[in-house]
Amino acid sequence: MADIIHRIGIRSPAAQVYNALSTLDGLAHWWTQDVTGDDRIGGKLEFNFRTKAGDLIGTIGMEVQAFDTPNEVRWRCVDEPAEWAGTEVTFELSQQDDQTIVLFGHRNWREATEFTAHCSMKWATFLLSLRDYVESGAGRPSPDDLKIDNWN
Amino acid sequence: MADIIHRIGIRSPAAQVYNALSTLDGLAHWWTQDVTGDDRIGGKLEFNFRTKAGDLIGTIGMEVQAFDTPNEVRWRCVDEPAEWAGTEVTFELSQQDDQTIVLFGHRNWREATEFTAHCSMKWATFLLSLRDYVESGAGRPSPDDLKIDNWN
Repeated sequence: MADIIHRIGIRSPAAQVYNALSTLDGLAHWWTQDVTGDDRIGGKLEFNFRTKAGDLIGTIGMEVQAFDTPNEVRWRCVDEPAEWAGTEVTFELSQQDDQTIVLFGHRNWREATEFTAHCSMKWATFLLSLRDYVESGAGRPSPDDLKIDNWN
Repeated sequence: MADIIHRIGIRSPAAQVYNALSTLDGLAHWWTQDVTGDDRIGGKLEFNFRTKAGDLIGTIGMEVQAFDTPNEVRWRCVDEPAEWAGTEVTFELSQQDDQTIVLFGHRNWREATEFTAHCSMKWATFLLSLRDYVESGAGRPSPDDLKIDNWN
């Protein structure tokens, strides 16, 4: 089993960070512009990743497992990608100093592979995108995301 | 036990990336400006982190365990910080497509804590700094590093 964990601080109220993590509109501003589905508990979210020309690269399906406004959002990966099957994604929010701290987890990978390492790096850049979006209104959701290696 | 792993691609020859990882001058351009010690196998490197005003925040001691030009650099953490005791840091380089791929590992943490999550995020931003330095000559070594949360 392997886990990816990251920690980032955002200089905005927790409610704003939570909104960016728990609504289709919020998610579209920092992870991928093309997100559809049902953002309520038990609902399924579909995150589509495309090239700048609009061609579909891949889709990530997430079931909303729980949320606790404005402290936690928890998803379970369903469908693709295959390496993500059974993994869980969590965002835990807390207030420390003048920041909203996001403790991010993408846990329960069957094994730590080079793809896990790619995803860890990619999540870090998306968390920077989340911070930029919440603090300034301008994130870098796919397809405008920072490319980090030959895989994306 | 917990591991941090990241993957980044750099559009420069492996020898240049390797140089940035294995020499005092290279390391000073992307991790921390204040690095001293002996960069040969068995030597000890001392990475000092300071505020912009010059006050010492902390020191990281690394023993150079191995290198394999231009494929791998391996360090073992000695001295502080306490949470890093017994951990290993590795950079494995390979050529894929037109990029030098760096597979980064900071392994053998006794446990995965919030500090591990902070370090994972921080390593990701330093790897972006490494890429910027090697590709363009301008990285963001401490104290000019990107601050990611209330801890640094």
